[in-house]
Parts: sequence; C-alpha cells; structure tokens
Amino acid sequence: MIQRLAIVGVGLLGGSIALAARAHGLAREIVGIGRDRTRLEAPLRAGAVDRVTTDLAAGVRDADVVVLAANVLANEQLLADAWPAVASSAVVTDVGSTKRGIVAAAERLPGAHRFVGSHPMAGSEKSGYAVARPDLFRGAIVIVTPGDASEPGAVKTVTSFWEALGARVSALEPDTHDRVVAAISHLPHVVAWALVEAVGRFEPAALPFAARGFKDTTRIAAADTAMWTEILLSNRDTIASSLGAFRGALGDLERLIAAGDRGGIERLLARLKAQRETLA
Amino acid sequence: MIQRLAIVGVGLLGGSIALAARAHGLAREIVGIGRDRTRLEAPLRAGAVDRVTTDLAAGVRDADVVVLAANVLANEQLLADAWPAVASSAVVTDVGSTKRGIVAAAERLPGAHRFVGSHPMAGSEKSGYAVARPDLFRGAIVIVTPGDASEPGAVKTVTSFWEALGARVSALEPDTHDRVVAAISHLPHVVAWALVEAVGRFEPAALPFAARGFKDTTRIAAADTAMWTEILLSNRDTIASSLGAFRGALGDLERLIAAGDRGGIERLLARLKAQRETLA
Repeated sequence: MIQRLAIVGVGLLGGSIALAARAHGLAREIVGIGRDRTRLEAPLRAGAVDRVTTDLAAGVRDADVVVLAANVLANEQLLADAWPAVASSAVVTDVGSTKRGIVAAAERLPGAHRFVGSHPMAGSEKSGYAVARPDLFRGAIVIVTPGDASEPGAVKTVTSFWEALGARVSALEPDTHDRVVAAISHLPHVVAWALVEAVGRFEPAALPFAARGFKDTTRIAAADTAMWTEILLSNRDTIASSLGAFRGALGDLERLIAAGDRGGIERLLARLKAQRETLA
Repeated sequence: MIQRLAIVGVGLLGGSIALAARAHGLAREIVGIGRDRTRLEAPLRAGAVDRVTTDLAAGVRDADVVVLAANVLANEQLLADAWPAVASSAVVTDVGSTKRGIVAAAERLPGAHRFVGSHPMAGSEKSGYAVARPDLFRGAIVIVTPGDASEPGAVKTVTSFWEALGARVSALEPDTHDRVVAAISHLPHVVAWALVEAVGRFEPAALPFAARGFKDTTRIAAADTAMWTEILLSNRDTIASSLGAFRGALGDLERLIAAGDRGGIERLLARLKAQRETLA
C-alpha cells in the first residue's frame, strides 16, 4: 500500500495511473500536480486524485512514490526541480517515451538509485485527462529501464507498481529501449507524417478517396504535437539511424518495382507478409 | 434485373459481388468463372453463384453483365480472351486497382464502348472467397473510369450496378484514378512494407514490443502478395512519382529533427495533425 502517490502531469497517462491506482486500491492518497490549475479540476472533481497543486515541491513532499507524467523533456527538468523536495525513502519513476535522457539526468542527482525509468506502451493519438481510463494499462507492456545506479529495491517497487495496474513489465537497458521505440514507434510516426504530407504534395485530390488502408497507416499522424516534438528531439540520433534503415528498405523495394521484377517483388512481399503476420 | 451476371474470379471481391447481387435480388442467374475448379466449390455450395465453370468463353456467353474480378494484369488478358464470346449487348467491367492499363486494353478491342472500368475501394488485407461478404460494398466508394470510347448507356449500367450493391460511385479519368490510388493506397502499401523490413534490419528485438501504432501502420503489409505484385507492376511509373513526393516530405521532416528545430517540428506536426484529422 502506497501512503502517498504523487503524479506530476495529470493527462492521459498520469490521469489513467490515478484512475487505475484508485480502482486497485493501490494508494491511500493521490496527489495531482500540474502547471495549470484549471486542467487539474476534472481529475479532482472525478475523485481520480484527492488533492491537486501547482506547487511541485509541495506536491511531491512526503510521497513514497512519485510518477513524472509530463512530456519527455519536461520530465527531465521536473526531475531535477522536484528532487530536493522528494523524501529520501521515496521511489521516483516517469512515463516518458525515451529513456537515455532521463536516466542520465537522474544519474547526475544525489540519490540516483531511487529513480527507475518506465515507459508504459499504452496511449492513444488523443491526449489529456478527458481520455484517461482506469484500464489503460491492463495487458499493456511497460518497459522499465534501470540505470547502473538503480537500487534493486526501487526496481522492484516500480515493477510491482505497474503490475498492480495490470501491465506486463519488461526490463531493457536505456540504450536498447531507445532503439526499440525508434523502430516500432518513432519511425512509424515519422513515416505517417511524411505520408500525409506526400499525398498533399503529390495529389491533393486523392484525400477524399482515402479508405481504411490509408486511415490505418496514418492514424498516428494525429498524435499530440507537443508530446511528439519532445520525443523526436530527445531521440533524434536513433531516429536518424532508423530512418537510414528505412530508406534502404524503401530503395530496395522501389528498385524491384522500377525494374518490373515480378519474381523479386513477389518473394519480398511474401516474406514481409509472413513477418507482419507474426504480429496480431 | 440482370438476366445473367458472369463473375470471372470468385475471391474476396468477386465473391462479395455475387453475395451482394444475390442479397439484393439483382440478377436472375449468377455464373462464377475461375481457373481452379476446387476454389469454385465454396461459392457454389453457399449459393452465392448458381453455376460455375473453368471455361471462360462458356461462362461469359449470353451474360448481360460481365465482371472481371481477377488480379489487375490478369484482368487485361481475361478481357481480351473473353471478348469474342461476350454478347454484343453485354456490358463489361472489372474491379482492378489500376485503370489505365485495362482501359487501354479495352480500347484495342472492337466494341470497346461496352467496357467501363471500375475500382471498388473496399477490401481487406485478407483475400479469397472465405472472407467475401454481402455488405462489403455498402457505403464503399467505387470509382468508375469511363474511357473516351465508353458508351453513356454502359457507364449508366455499371454505375447503377454498384449503387444497387450499396456503393457510392465517383467517376474519374483513368490517369487521375491511377494517381489518386498511387497516393492513398499504393504509396502507403510500399511504405508499410518498407517499415516492416526496416524494423527487421534496424532492431529485430523491437518487434515483440510492437503496440497499436506499429500494428495499424503496417496492417496493410499483410496484403495479398499476388494481387499486389500486379498492382505495383501495373502502376509503377505513378508509384515512382509518388515515392518522389514521399522522399521529399520525409527529408524535410528529417532535417528539422536533425537540426533540433523545435518550432519547425511543432508547426509541421500541428499542420499534419490537422490535415489527418479531416479524415474520419
């Protein structure tokens, strides 16, 4: 039982953590912390949090678990700003989509062993508390990324926390994590944005004819702008490498098409179909 | 009321046409034609078609409407092969995903005014009669592409046919059609295949972590290999142009990320989010 759970940023993820913790009776008191008092009204009225504040230090004080749930670069700054007020027995985690930056930021702080990064792979192209829900993490994968300094007890606390919310937890090195999410999340987002832009440039008359295929492929292009700007900035080197692999793959397929190589196209498409079908 | 409807290729699209025509009481007799007798058993047993044959000429003879529902390049050959047996009063259409090729093929035939190309924008990454359904065309867009030779009466017959199956019909020039589908269908497929391939090359360990975003973006990578090989081959010049636009858009976004241009990324992502949100 957590005596006091402090959540910094009560949007889709922070709000869902509050709702899930409440639903599972995981915390005696939940404190919601944000910059904008008006945005804290809805979770407070709904009883997702017991108390709200715009004062970061006051909000995290005496909490035994602190979750940073703002955007990824903002979390790095919030970690440093909150740290002096965080109890020396508290465990701190975050929900950011990249992990090298915040783990490095934590390792510059005294008592870094009490920070363990998390990345719940749940979400939506929608954002804000209005779309938060208590079952967001049920069955979701949460990657935890202990740094070299992380204390085993803190890793266990954070792992148990996510498992209590219904998630399946995997541990990865921060570097590996950032490559994994570049591959299966950041690269697809960049590609989806480029697709929307390309259709506008190539044949704007095409959009009214868009059917399910185009809609599925570009759904994530409607993702939250502020959140994704920070993700792209915080993982730019790895995204650049993944784009290199993508350009290579695209070029190979394009050459087969340009050459009219029926056998080559068929073999490649059959292999990729099989590979995609290994996913649900 | 169609006296005899002949459908060449009784897979997802041909089978769904049969089921829908049956459900709407649109044809007195429906003939299913295919190369492989065993694949014609299921639609025959289900009563989707009244009669099946592997003899193309016998199948289309005395039909008043003939629908070519094989793969796109195969349809061009089937059109030429079937033509001598098609009644001079019959109207012929197809369901292929590209239209310049088959319209040009029709215009080389005597009586070309009785051919009107169609492209029902409905389907699935699955294929075959097993996934056919009578409501596949309900609310779907069907693009008809009358050629210079097409007779207004034939255009009307084909348009009414699709409308009777529940579709909304738009007319486009064959050239415009092929640009539109390159933009909103062929390009996204090529990109989805390249994404699956790129993840395998860049970070194979990432695939088990794939969540909804990656799955949505790459769902169409599981599309039917034989069908898509022919689509890519039949529209290769236009696909190449659309890939040029895509590379340009991708490069612009990549440069903003590499430069760490927060304002530029935010503005571009906000614009593309708004553009994507104009689609359902």
